[in-house]
Amino acid sequence: MKLLENRILTDGRVLQGQIVKVDSFLNHKMDPMLLKELAAEFKRLYGSEGVTKILTAEASGIALAAIVGLEMAVPVVFARKTRSSKVSPDLYSARVVSFTHGNEYTVTVAREYITEDDKILIIDDFISNGSTLRALVDICRSANATVVGAGVAIEKVFSKGADRIRASGVRVEALARIGAIGDDGSIDFV
Amino acid sequence: MKLLENRILTDGRVLQGQIVKVDSFLNHKMDPMLLKELAAEFKRLYGSEGVTKILTAEASGIALAAIVGLEMAVPVVFARKTRSSKVSPDLYSARVVSFTHGNEYTVTVAREYITEDDKILIIDDFISNGSTLRALVDICRSANATVVGAGVAIEKVFSKGADRIRASGVRVEALARIGAIGDDGSIDFV
Repeated sequence: MKLLENRILTDGRVLQGQIVKVDSFLNHKMDPMLLKELAAEFKRLYGSEGVTKILTAEASGIALAAIVGLEMAVPVVFARKTRSSKVSPDLYSARVVSFTHGNEYTVTVAREYITEDDKILIIDDFISNGSTLRALVDICRSANATVVGAGVAIEKVFSKGADRIRASGVRVEALARIGAIGDDGSIDFV
Repeated sequence: MKLLENRILTDGRVLQGQIVKVDSFLNHKMDPMLLKELAAEFKRLYGSEGVTKILTAEASGIALAAIVGLEMAVPVVFARKTRSSKVSPDLYSARVVSFTHGNEYTVTVAREYITEDDKILIIDDFISNGSTLRALVDICRSANATVVGAGVAIEKVFSKGADRIRASGVRVEALARIGAIGDDGSIDFV
């Protein structure tokens, strides 16, 4: 999606360790008008799939997920983060290893909010090693819900996380796919 | 706002300790169509104030704030939570004592995303003791930004947090104001 690629080139910053910082418009300060355009694109891609619910993870996926939910007129659930690996029996849970922060945590969803009748679209701002997305898919599977697919704003293709999830049979659509980051901070899209 | 009061009566649950659980439509599973109605009301209340930015705190304020930002066509910033009380000099920070979870944490915002030219509308899902809202006001003051006011979905009036902040000169608008919670789980609105 050209609109998002251009925004990344204009307002994104490349930090050491091939980190692309987009917190001026996507995940700290956010441009809701841009998010609405991304949401419209996810609706175009998944609108005919009978989606009943959006699932995301706190915190940086929530704004985009909320606006996708509004666009597609379905409820939005966000998985909560907790340090603890012990969780209540009322919750579905899965472990996440964060690429960006180099730590581990558990994400949880109340069992009552995902059921086997649900057709879930997973939304997130970013995918690199795919650990968050993997955990959200696992939570849907624990609930016997159908995963229609995932929509992420930005994919770091070279981190291979999205491709591993695609190889497991889950549709993953990314609106900007970063293929390479140069030593000079240049960004190439696939 | 009758729409929100009715939704609290229909789908809210009262837990021990005068906790009102609204996580089936407001802050775990969320109804974006309801959030859009709340956002329209905040726009009616604050639309003539020249708001330049929405500020909220992760995680449960983000969905509502994003949709308010969309409605008012301004950027949205969410303050991040951290356990640590040591923060980078690039951040504004303030301490929060959580009523619901009985713990303390720090909220932070990158200095570059709030400036003295900003007229900030603070948005959150809930106010009880007012600690989060107080911290967000403090962050705006540290940045010499103008606080236009705050919009919260639900106020627990008997916790007095909102009134303390009003008494300090900040406009606080709540769309459902809970005056009392009965021992039988009944909810009375002000």
